[in-house]
Amino acid sequence: MSASRLNRRITLAARPQGLPTARDFHLDTQPIPEPADGQVLLRTRFLSLDPYMRGMMDEAGPGYAPGVRLGQPMVGGTVSEVVASRDPRFEVGQFVLANAGWQDYALSGGSDLTPLGQMARPSLALGGLGMPGFTAYVGLLDIGEPKPGETVVVAAATGAVGSVVGQLAKLKGARVVGIAGGAAKCRHAVEVLGFDACLDHREPDLKARLAAACPDGIDVYFENVGGEVLDAVLPLLNLHARIPVCGFIAHYNERDAGTADKRTQLLATVLARRVRMQGFIILDHYATRFADFRRDMTQWIDEGRIVLVEDVVDGLEQAPEAFIGLLQGRNFGKVVVRVAD
Amino acid sequence: MSASRLNRRITLAARPQGLPTARDFHLDTQPIPEPADGQVLLRTRFLSLDPYMRGMMDEAGPGYAPGVRLGQPMVGGTVSEVVASRDPRFEVGQFVLANAGWQDYALSGGSDLTPLGQMARPSLALGGLGMPGFTAYVGLLDIGEPKPGETVVVAAATGAVGSVVGQLAKLKGARVVGIAGGAAKCRHAVEVLGFDACLDHREPDLKARLAAACPDGIDVYFENVGGEVLDAVLPLLNLHARIPVCGFIAHYNERDAGTADKRTQLLATVLARRVRMQGFIILDHYATRFADFRRDMTQWIDEGRIVLVEDVVDGLEQAPEAFIGLLQGRNFGKVVVRVAD
Repeated sequence: MSASRLNRRITLAARPQGLPTARDFHLDTQPIPEPADGQVLLRTRFLSLDPYMRGMMDEAGPGYAPGVRLGQPMVGGTVSEVVASRDPRFEVGQFVLANAGWQDYALSGGSDLTPLGQMARPSLALGGLGMPGFTAYVGLLDIGEPKPGETVVVAAATGAVGSVVGQLAKLKGARVVGIAGGAAKCRHAVEVLGFDACLDHREPDLKARLAAACPDGIDVYFENVGGEVLDAVLPLLNLHARIPVCGFIAHYNERDAGTADKRTQLLATVLARRVRMQGFIILDHYATRFADFRRDMTQWIDEGRIVLVEDVVDGLEQAPEAFIGLLQGRNFGKVVVRVAD
Repeated sequence: MSASRLNRRITLAARPQGLPTARDFHLDTQPIPEPADGQVLLRTRFLSLDPYMRGMMDEAGPGYAPGVRLGQPMVGGTVSEVVASRDPRFEVGQFVLANAGWQDYALSGGSDLTPLGQMARPSLALGGLGMPGFTAYVGLLDIGEPKPGETVVVAAATGAVGSVVGQLAKLKGARVVGIAGGAAKCRHAVEVLGFDACLDHREPDLKARLAAACPDGIDVYFENVGGEVLDAVLPLLNLHARIPVCGFIAHYNERDAGTADKRTQLLATVLARRVRMQGFIILDHYATRFADFRRDMTQWIDEGRIVLVEDVVDGLEQAPEAFIGLLQGRNFGKVVVRVAD
């Protein structure tokens, strides 16, 4: 019986410990489902494979969606053809962007489908013109905000997201340094994608090579791997650097094993909860905001809406002990030393 | 000889390992300096003590300024009185905000002085109306952006910064949960400062108590301590939470000892370099940005400015192996499975 008469599905057979193996997946066949009124039957033409799917194999999911249930088809974005329609909005033969998962056929109620129109390469709707490309676009342009002349670093440089990140950064006039695994990928990043440089993370001493490749520091680090790449990036970050966090593939296989370090757990939370974390040094803000602050605070104090408690220590010679106490939390309110009356 | 005829200075005698001790400081006396033309002589009235000073005791400084040199006076903000002036902008008897450091007298060229005018409590210029209050204002209002009904968590709740953070958050209509050391401070935070709740971090099981005190999760966490408070906060963060990072006093004494974990090193970099780190899940952005993306990317592809490389795998049955390869970095470009032609 041909694949076109049965629905082949790849289901989640077991929850992987670490890197998935072939045994974690199961190929079965089912009858092709029949669309009910208002439904369409989709034939999968292209299935997207993306790193986030590793998180979907864990019971808890990747943090923003529940995991795939055991025995159910793996989820995934697809370019699908409408092969039967009981929804007047969709015609047989039409190509749509869908979430049919790892199977030949799927039913849809239509609300999650995007008509693709005529595309020369419909599979691009899963890549550069789809979710990965969109991830690069929003992450780099809206969060990373590269400016001409700035240095942008992206790992997985030839991957679906990284390759677009780097090219968009070049379009915006930035200098782009990629990181990839192997000499062939690095050559490709420079020669085909137009990166200024690309480093092979399999070679030794990534830290020193990244420092040499970024003589003006790093202004935008598009975070998609974590691990030793982040180790190498941190010392090179410039003032006011931006880090869009889109994932950290280096750790996807360790989360369930409880081996993730505290930094990875923090990144996982930043990602899953869309957290914005921003360091600030107050010295930077006097020119723009100090007058507002003095006006507002003075008013709030006068109105009794803000209470200010001081912990006054008498005598300069008491400063060391008072300071040590401050570091131990022994103070109560703002510590000031009355040096002279 | 009275303190008014000599300049007592507290200098950095040794670089502390961990918590400073009295032996890391040295009290000496020097002749009172004479102002040159264009200078003023300042008499310290109030000296501010602040946690950032711990970082100034390390050779490398806190990350945004060099450390104090051995044998030099500790740096610090002061409320000082002009006692001699060879700068026409300043009059004897005038009070100014200055950076005179841990000493009775200091010279200034005038450019770092802010006249204080008539203040009922001039020491407040070092606290709620000065740098700590300004830190709370910018960090909470400009970065944390609390909205009415949101939950704001701040540690060191009765400290110079935390006490203002919490009160500002209440002014903005947020629910405020503080964390402080000891029952007296917690009572003060609720009864005097008006926090909705305050937890004693010395009592056991902070995680469970914080979860109970934040039934709607946490929208803004004003980071000033790190450590176990951050551990307790992370699982409770709501979508789109904001974390202004102003410091992490729990770790100030471990940085030189090389005991800081990777998360603390990350926070230290985020702080010192004023980094903005932001997690995003692309699903959130389709409604607002997908049309822009499709328009821009289509144009850039048509112009040949963006190259899209695909790694096409043939056959649904190949999906598991291709996916495992993707997690290992074996792919070259975007991975799609051609399921049917």
